[in-house]
Amino acid sequence: MKTYKNPEREIWSQVLRRPTRTYEEIEGLVASMFEEIEKDGDAGVRKYVKAYDGADLSALEVSDKEKKEAPGKLTAELKSSIGLAHENIEKFHRVQRTQRVEVETFPGVRCWQEKRPIEKVGLYIPGGTAPLFSTVLMLAVPAKIAGCKEVVLCTPSDQNGNIDPAILFTAELCGIDRIFKVGGIQAIAAMTFGTESIPAVYKLFGPGNQYVTVAKQMALKYGVAIDLPAGPSELLVLADESADPAFVASDLLSQAEHGADSQVVLVSLSERLELAVQEQIELQLQALPRKDIASKAIENSKSIVMDSYERALELVNAYAPEHLIVCLKDSDSVLSHIANAGSVFVGNYTPESAGDYASGTNHTLPTNGFARNFSGVNLDSFQKAITFQEITKSGLQGIGGAIEQMAEAEGLRAHRNAVTLRLEKMKRDKS
Amino acid sequence: MKTYKNPEREIWSQVLRRPTRTYEEIEGLVASMFEEIEKDGDAGVRKYVKAYDGADLSALEVSDKEKKEAPGKLTAELKSSIGLAHENIEKFHRVQRTQRVEVETFPGVRCWQEKRPIEKVGLYIPGGTAPLFSTVLMLAVPAKIAGCKEVVLCTPSDQNGNIDPAILFTAELCGIDRIFKVGGIQAIAAMTFGTESIPAVYKLFGPGNQYVTVAKQMALKYGVAIDLPAGPSELLVLADESADPAFVASDLLSQAEHGADSQVVLVSLSERLELAVQEQIELQLQALPRKDIASKAIENSKSIVMDSYERALELVNAYAPEHLIVCLKDSDSVLSHIANAGSVFVGNYTPESAGDYASGTNHTLPTNGFARNFSGVNLDSFQKAITFQEITKSGLQGIGGAIEQMAEAEGLRAHRNAVTLRLEKMKRDKS
Repeated sequence: MKTYKNPEREIWSQVLRRPTRTYEEIEGLVASMFEEIEKDGDAGVRKYVKAYDGADLSALEVSDKEKKEAPGKLTAELKSSIGLAHENIEKFHRVQRTQRVEVETFPGVRCWQEKRPIEKVGLYIPGGTAPLFSTVLMLAVPAKIAGCKEVVLCTPSDQNGNIDPAILFTAELCGIDRIFKVGGIQAIAAMTFGTESIPAVYKLFGPGNQYVTVAKQMALKYGVAIDLPAGPSELLVLADESADPAFVASDLLSQAEHGADSQVVLVSLSERLELAVQEQIELQLQALPRKDIASKAIENSKSIVMDSYERALELVNAYAPEHLIVCLKDSDSVLSHIANAGSVFVGNYTPESAGDYASGTNHTLPTNGFARNFSGVNLDSFQKAITFQEITKSGLQGIGGAIEQMAEAEGLRAHRNAVTLRLEKMKRDKS
Repeated sequence: MKTYKNPEREIWSQVLRRPTRTYEEIEGLVASMFEEIEKDGDAGVRKYVKAYDGADLSALEVSDKEKKEAPGKLTAELKSSIGLAHENIEKFHRVQRTQRVEVETFPGVRCWQEKRPIEKVGLYIPGGTAPLFSTVLMLAVPAKIAGCKEVVLCTPSDQNGNIDPAILFTAELCGIDRIFKVGGIQAIAAMTFGTESIPAVYKLFGPGNQYVTVAKQMALKYGVAIDLPAGPSELLVLADESADPAFVASDLLSQAEHGADSQVVLVSLSERLELAVQEQIELQLQALPRKDIASKAIENSKSIVMDSYERALELVNAYAPEHLIVCLKDSDSVLSHIANAGSVFVGNYTPESAGDYASGTNHTLPTNGFARNFSGVNLDSFQKAITFQEITKSGLQGIGGAIEQMAEAEGLRAHRNAVTLRLEKMKRDKS
């Protein structure tokens, strides 16, 4: 870790600079695959599944038989762990439901707002070395609570056409009925246009590599909404001497093992803590199976010692971390000053991995500074707010004059007419 | 209007096709102006203000003197109309505030969600023939309620460097303190990068022509969020014989006058109503100052007669209109079946122009079918939701095992370690 002591405000953006990626060279490939899959449907999808995943699939969709066999391939411990996580995630997302909001803004003018589910959503779950069944929970649980009618899941199979049983088990537990063995650009294109087998959706969710990221941006151009702009995962730990150095080190490493480009930042109010954490990192790193990845990420990481809580907080808000651990003597007084963060973990016994799996909060969060202007995935991500209004005759008499004035001043006569006509009718009806 | 009677489901998408636009030829211009303004700041902005608006500005920012003089240039009626609209919009957006949402998902595991304002937002108000002061209300009022710290407004001046006094008056009323005389691509670029005079923002709001639309998409690439993808304005009226044909015609025309590419659709349950509305349109059209624009839009519009309420509703949801007027004998029973719409206007005395100006709902709404997957601008557009969690020792003992199991199954040992280390520490402390 590179260490900085009380860096000046002017160099913060330089100290905290995230690695930038450009995707331009991928865009051409994505565009041509989108065109092909729009035209060829399933045949186009199959071609790329064969090319990229090496699987020659007879059916793109996971069969009932495969779903039924999945639970038998998992340990009872894992199944009950997933069950517990499911319950907690459901509890936290259920309380996010909002009632219809209504107000009579003016006598006879009733305005209200109601949330409605996005009818068709697509969940993308990456394959590869780690089967991310936890992400299935994070996306499918709120989709179901929101009441999305059609929830489709795409995830790549292995060469033999098999999907990890933990993914199948979790999807079943969440009540997802359609799972397709398709990954990468071809999955995103299929859910954008729809094919003979795979339905088109209105919004796409889920993480992915650079190809999936660019494909999701392309989907947006075709009118499909996406959850969040993507970037490498990040953790910032804000700690003083009340923090346990071993715990802090373990949290930093848990982020670092995600990938060599993971962002790990320690902001400490104490040089002693800083040194102790560095020591612990060296110690714990040795035992990790993903040691190579984690040590690369740690090499690129920053350790910043600040001499005041106020400036430390300012730095945190300037960085806008995806995950923020706050381990301070008086953490509570600090929380209301956190302006920009995806998810916040408070105290010594709240590791970031709790939120990744089982506490109940969502782990699909804004990276790359997007915590300044985006929420993480939550129940509202699967809904849209629709406004309604109903105006009585006397209500229109009350506000009609204002509408006429304003429409005329904006040069929109027909807007004015729509009111005038109604007001005149009321006059005629009266006389 | 082209008339269709009971069209089959298969041809709906063809009947309801929206005009598509491609912006590719503009992208090059936008990209080069962004680069120039990032590099040259104010000098770059001034250059394009001179080139496009013909104004040679000594200061980009509106002065206090100009703000003070604005109210004197408006009639008392217009000022009190804007005041009434302001009040209603404030009432409707105030009730959208949400409390912190909290739940103990598991004993000792406390999770909560809080909304925080997006700290810096930029509002874009188009200039040109009509001064859209109503849009100032729709964007500035929720920004202020949300508590955004910095609210910046950009709008083009005329050749003499003057801004319409209604825009200045409304901005003052809403408490916006910084207004810049900059429009078009140069305004969006300036708020994306920040210049010597104009602050950079985290999210951009507001309508605009095709140049502004492409510029907002470009801003997104630089990490600035935007309110909505843009498109021409739309209205669908769903009506049966309980509707007043003159009112329906006036509403359709109020939409049609926006531009020749405006989308106007009538879905009627009655041929008699349909004919009466067509007649009324011809009649009312003659008196409109924007007659040419409106008649072009009406020419491209669709009138669809459906023989059942159920199929009519299905059609409405398939189209996903920005504005939807519902004028039925039993409108109320239909409302819960509206799945996709931006804003809904119920009954004979609720013209769409009420929502454009003064009833209280927002007029910045999803067009082009985006009502399927986007909300219109509301209080949440100016906030983000942050999640928090705090776990006690016994809480971690309760869910720690599940986290360990799941992390191990996903191949993420360091994630597991962060829990294991803490559980072991607790054991050691006990013994």
